[in-house]
Amino acid sequence: MPRVSAEHLTARREQILWAALRCFERSGFHATSMRDVVRESGLSAGAVYSYFPSKDDLVAAAVEPILTTVITALDEVVADGTAAPTDVVRTLVERIWPVATGGQVDYTRVAVTAWGEALRDPAVRRIAEGTYGTVRTRLGDIVAAWRDAGHLPGDTDARALAQVLFSVLVGLVLQHALLGDVDLQAYTGAVGLLLPDR
Amino acid sequence: MPRVSAEHLTARREQILWAALRCFERSGFHATSMRDVVRESGLSAGAVYSYFPSKDDLVAAAVEPILTTVITALDEVVADGTAAPTDVVRTLVERIWPVATGGQVDYTRVAVTAWGEALRDPAVRRIAEGTYGTVRTRLGDIVAAWRDAGHLPGDTDARALAQVLFSVLVGLVLQHALLGDVDLQAYTGAVGLLLPDR
Repeated sequence: MPRVSAEHLTARREQILWAALRCFERSGFHATSMRDVVRESGLSAGAVYSYFPSKDDLVAAAVEPILTTVITALDEVVADGTAAPTDVVRTLVERIWPVATGGQVDYTRVAVTAWGEALRDPAVRRIAEGTYGTVRTRLGDIVAAWRDAGHLPGDTDARALAQVLFSVLVGLVLQHALLGDVDLQAYTGAVGLLLPDR
Repeated sequence: MPRVSAEHLTARREQILWAALRCFERSGFHATSMRDVVRESGLSAGAVYSYFPSKDDLVAAAVEPILTTVITALDEVVADGTAAPTDVVRTLVERIWPVATGGQVDYTRVAVTAWGEALRDPAVRRIAEGTYGTVRTRLGDIVAAWRDAGHLPGDTDARALAQVLFSVLVGLVLQHALLGDVDLQAYTGAVGLLLPDR
């Protein structure tokens, strides 16, 4: 058996993941079979299964990078701890958007697909709950800090306001994927009108 | 052939539509067959097909009442023309929610399913585009009136702000269907903090 470099293994793994994402974007998770991914990847079934023994493994690995991008961006944006909640949402959108929509897969389509399938597929649901739970918790912390600094009424429900701001994020994803007519700069500009610094 | 009253025809049509909605909520539009709806309804295939010749007809008729509820509520809420945009969104949520989540079908699940399927099914997409287009246009009119009355900066992009407010609506739908942890009263209270009357 020939010696295979670590770079080669990584490149091949990536090749499979991109093939899977293209299938998921096109057909959804449920309707995509391992056979579809094998065909799309141009590799052998044995090669694909050696990296990803099941479709659940493949789904989890395929969406992991974009979810990590979202959480990392959120952590960086909130790092200074003084930004207004809507500025955080705006900056977050500006950071994530190029990655979500500028590559070989439009992740907003993958996300909207995932929402529908999460209602029926526990594996997809767990991924959505984990990621969205983290995002909302961080947003809640930002709102609470903003409230405690006196910028919002003292009885502001941080958890509920974080849910509203989370809606601003996922609503953008939905409108882009479904209606395709959102101007990102105008949208983030409008977000800046909410909860102005006062 | 026995004479059949108009009431009987209407009741039977309703029976089929509720059966279809239960199927759609459980399995999605795509995975639901006419046979599933026939079985769920307890009627004969001939009866079901005599009302709805195709699944597209059935999908359109099944979601029509809730979409009409949304548009009617929106028209009533905006009728006076002086309400603040976020008050409109709040009142809209309060009006629609009992119908959307309090009946024999949770329409938020049907909606989230529809979003994913609209990416691949032109018939579902047309329904979503039509309804959401109407809602966003009305919200844009409200924002423009509010801006023109001096409550928002003169250069406010009414269309973009309407998209953000639309996100507040659909984000609630998503979070209820997918995460199930939204307290409606707290959520609408938090919406009231955005764009306060000033």
